[in-house]
Amino acid sequence: MSSLLVSASGSACLRCSRSQRLRAFRFFSKTAGAHSRTNLRSPTPSDAQALASLLDQGGSVLTGSPADLSKYNVDWKGEYRGESRIVVQPKTAREISRIVSYCNGERIGVVPQGGNTGLVGGSVPVSDEVVVSTERMNAIHGLDTDSGILTCDAGCVLQDLHSYAAERNHLVPLDLGAKGTCQIGGNVATNAGGQYFYRFGSLHANVLGLEAVLADGTILNVTSTNRKDNTGYDMKHLFIGSEGTLGLITKINLSCPQLPSSRNAAFLACETFGDVLKTLTVAKEELGECLAAFEFMDRAVLRLVQKDHRIPVTCSADSEGLYPFYLLVETQGSNDTHDSEKMALFLEKLLHCGQIADGVLSQDLSQVEAMWAIRENCNPATKAMGHNWKYDISIPVSEYYDIAEEMRERIRNVRPDALCVCWGHVVDCNLHFNVTTPGEFEEDEELTAILEPYLFESVVRRKGSISAEHGLGRCKNEYLGELAKNEAALAKMRMIKGMFDPRGILNPDKVFPTC
Amino acid sequence: MSSLLVSASGSACLRCSRSQRLRAFRFFSKTAGAHSRTNLRSPTPSDAQALASLLDQGGSVLTGSPADLSKYNVDWKGEYRGESRIVVQPKTAREISRIVSYCNGERIGVVPQGGNTGLVGGSVPVSDEVVVSTERMNAIHGLDTDSGILTCDAGCVLQDLHSYAAERNHLVPLDLGAKGTCQIGGNVATNAGGQYFYRFGSLHANVLGLEAVLADGTILNVTSTNRKDNTGYDMKHLFIGSEGTLGLITKINLSCPQLPSSRNAAFLACETFGDVLKTLTVAKEELGECLAAFEFMDRAVLRLVQKDHRIPVTCSADSEGLYPFYLLVETQGSNDTHDSEKMALFLEKLLHCGQIADGVLSQDLSQVEAMWAIRENCNPATKAMGHNWKYDISIPVSEYYDIAEEMRERIRNVRPDALCVCWGHVVDCNLHFNVTTPGEFEEDEELTAILEPYLFESVVRRKGSISAEHGLGRCKNEYLGELAKNEAALAKMRMIKGMFDPRGILNPDKVFPTC
Repeated sequence: MSSLLVSASGSACLRCSRSQRLRAFRFFSKTAGAHSRTNLRSPTPSDAQALASLLDQGGSVLTGSPADLSKYNVDWKGEYRGESRIVVQPKTAREISRIVSYCNGERIGVVPQGGNTGLVGGSVPVSDEVVVSTERMNAIHGLDTDSGILTCDAGCVLQDLHSYAAERNHLVPLDLGAKGTCQIGGNVATNAGGQYFYRFGSLHANVLGLEAVLADGTILNVTSTNRKDNTGYDMKHLFIGSEGTLGLITKINLSCPQLPSSRNAAFLACETFGDVLKTLTVAKEELGECLAAFEFMDRAVLRLVQKDHRIPVTCSADSEGLYPFYLLVETQGSNDTHDSEKMALFLEKLLHCGQIADGVLSQDLSQVEAMWAIRENCNPATKAMGHNWKYDISIPVSEYYDIAEEMRERIRNVRPDALCVCWGHVVDCNLHFNVTTPGEFEEDEELTAILEPYLFESVVRRKGSISAEHGLGRCKNEYLGELAKNEAALAKMRMIKGMFDPRGILNPDKVFPTC
Repeated sequence: MSSLLVSASGSACLRCSRSQRLRAFRFFSKTAGAHSRTNLRSPTPSDAQALASLLDQGGSVLTGSPADLSKYNVDWKGEYRGESRIVVQPKTAREISRIVSYCNGERIGVVPQGGNTGLVGGSVPVSDEVVVSTERMNAIHGLDTDSGILTCDAGCVLQDLHSYAAERNHLVPLDLGAKGTCQIGGNVATNAGGQYFYRFGSLHANVLGLEAVLADGTILNVTSTNRKDNTGYDMKHLFIGSEGTLGLITKINLSCPQLPSSRNAAFLACETFGDVLKTLTVAKEELGECLAAFEFMDRAVLRLVQKDHRIPVTCSADSEGLYPFYLLVETQGSNDTHDSEKMALFLEKLLHCGQIADGVLSQDLSQVEAMWAIRENCNPATKAMGHNWKYDISIPVSEYYDIAEEMRERIRNVRPDALCVCWGHVVDCNLHFNVTTPGEFEEDEELTAILEPYLFESVVRRKGSISAEHGLGRCKNEYLGELAKNEAALAKMRMIKGMFDPRGILNPDKVFPTC
């Protein structure tokens, strides 16, 4: 049924309602191979040979069945599966230029892939596109300690950049749970956010320049080690967050602040979400410029996390020992005495006003890290429970938790066993709302139909965003024109895509609706 | 001679050398009226009537001779003069849409104008284009104190936004000398930087969304009150810094941090530029997250400033009482005790290591402001001296002052009376290098030929930028393809311009070379 809907002309869509159409395409987009694209052709073994001949020493081409290449075909969630039989592992932008130029000439789809840790199916093929992996492009070209500017290739693992910068007394202004695997090129291509976004800003703020290979093989060099450069259009921004649909990012200049000499954290519990909001206000006032992170977790997710991690603040009145809401608040600064004093004043004020039920302060760095281990376990603990519906939304802070309650109520009668679990970067209004069916790892399509597009429509009604930091990929691309961009903005997006990639070879069927 | 060079085909350019060509066009671009554009026509009185009929109540059209409309035709420096006879003052984006759509249909050039405080001739007409002034579009739509997001129309004066935000305990993260006159729309269109760029980041970091009217009259609404929104290409960035060549910005969402409760400043003197650099390193270490501004001034500019302002740190060994280099360092924070202590530790360390010759600390806010008055007088004091060659460059910090010394040496034999005066945001590697001929207000073309393009070539050799924060406008547009963007980047810029403004009506002859 769904394959019928995906006619090349898309005319069948006119016959179905929006929600039917959105659902049908969403289901379709998770299955590979069935997509009959008119603009692209399937690569053959001789294409693999031709691609191999374009590589220099050090680069290689992997071929095999989709199962042999499952590392490259299957996403982190195991939900999106491509059928690529060719993976190219170049070492240089020049090689990528030749590869992409060849594929453009031959009308073969190309999927750029970094650490493949994305959560919206954006980094794996939809069908049998050629995967261009940046895993061998992992040179760090240096960090200028005068200016704090790091230059590196796209395939550097984020954790490696953190270590490299820390050895030079600097900090990479991006941190997220997947840092041990994700690559900076993928981070930039998806405009990754993470837990220190509030303090350091987005990658639009911190990427000073980049190099990208365009669909026709042009190497577009807009690298820069200048913090200020107002000479013409700042085109790097087009590539940040474009999810590999406009070019393959190959090199990056990143602004890195000095490493803070002091880190402190508090783990706090609140009885009501109103208290969470009041605590946030007090944090901004009392911690001011030291405030680095303000993370939220609800009781439902900590129930899952506490199987493997001791929660440092427990509630004796609760059968599971948990309060309704938890916060992880971190300061980073240059003077530990001052930061500790600020944190103490912050807690004192909260306790005095009764805005927190209880809380603990870190005594050393290992305790800061133990608190973060709880927060970073939210995702894997939820994934381990059962099938996982993941929603990454922006929502006005005053309504941040209302949407979770609304959705809990909505699914209660359909799947009373399903768990709604929440965590997120509340200081940025970014909620990770998750649903899981304990013990059941197959998707319950009836539950999906209850969740979507209702949840997204509710987000838009509340003036939020249906994708705060994960992107659209294959998971939300069908909603782009319906619930994300208005007609004029979508038209300009299509013009830009057409300008940079007229044959549509780059990361096909991602970001834009396939309908 | 220069008008001959500007043939429509530009073919005459092939016969002249690059530097001749650059100079000839630069001179040409300062004179209005002579430009024979083939793509645009001159507006007539009947166009003025037609434009008036497109306005709602509250909007108006001014007509008159170029001299009558000199406020709109002449730039702040008095150097660039247009010959517009029609100025439109709309109040809404819908009116602008109708105006621009009309001009597009009629092939009439349109110059968007905010406070007209730009320093590169970007906000005044080259010839007789219609000026669209945003001065009546000055509604502030509100500041959400939960999220810190301010929404306002493009014509709001920056100072008014500062006052409005401060009354609501927030801070507009952009500050510059012209804040009493410049408008936020112009700030965004030119990606203005200013003195707190280091602390708060660029407008790419702080503008969350905007509305712009495109050349065909389309109102492109990419406003957003979400800090995180990864749904498709983030097109607002194209307009930030595009100097009105892609659309007229009409509305802005701006992220505003909480107002700091504490401000402290130090005015320091150094004997060598090496000491300036060491002081910067110590400031980053000791002041850390509180460091808000680190401004540089040399003896030459303070000689001019001290006619009207008392310099709080003087040198008894110097006949004029001045040290070679001065710094204004400001902290902003949430705890005055901590900030004062950090500043005291900072000064103690500097004095102990002998990195500063002398210095004073502010005792109250009025003293902070008195120090800033010195810094903000650098520009007007230089302007008052004589003709002013203004260069706004980025340069690696280790070579920050080398270029000033190099240029001083270069002009010494030609114009020994000319003064090279320097100030800037050294923490961002942004130098304002100025040359003035005391008592002589006409441009000495021989001196210009000594300065340009040599200075820009020197900047590029040093891997800097020929325009850090002022933009290209008419002043540096001829250098875009020569000394700013490579061929591939320039080609993509032209494609983007062609896509958004195929008839070239928006701010013609700005940003792009006319040759």
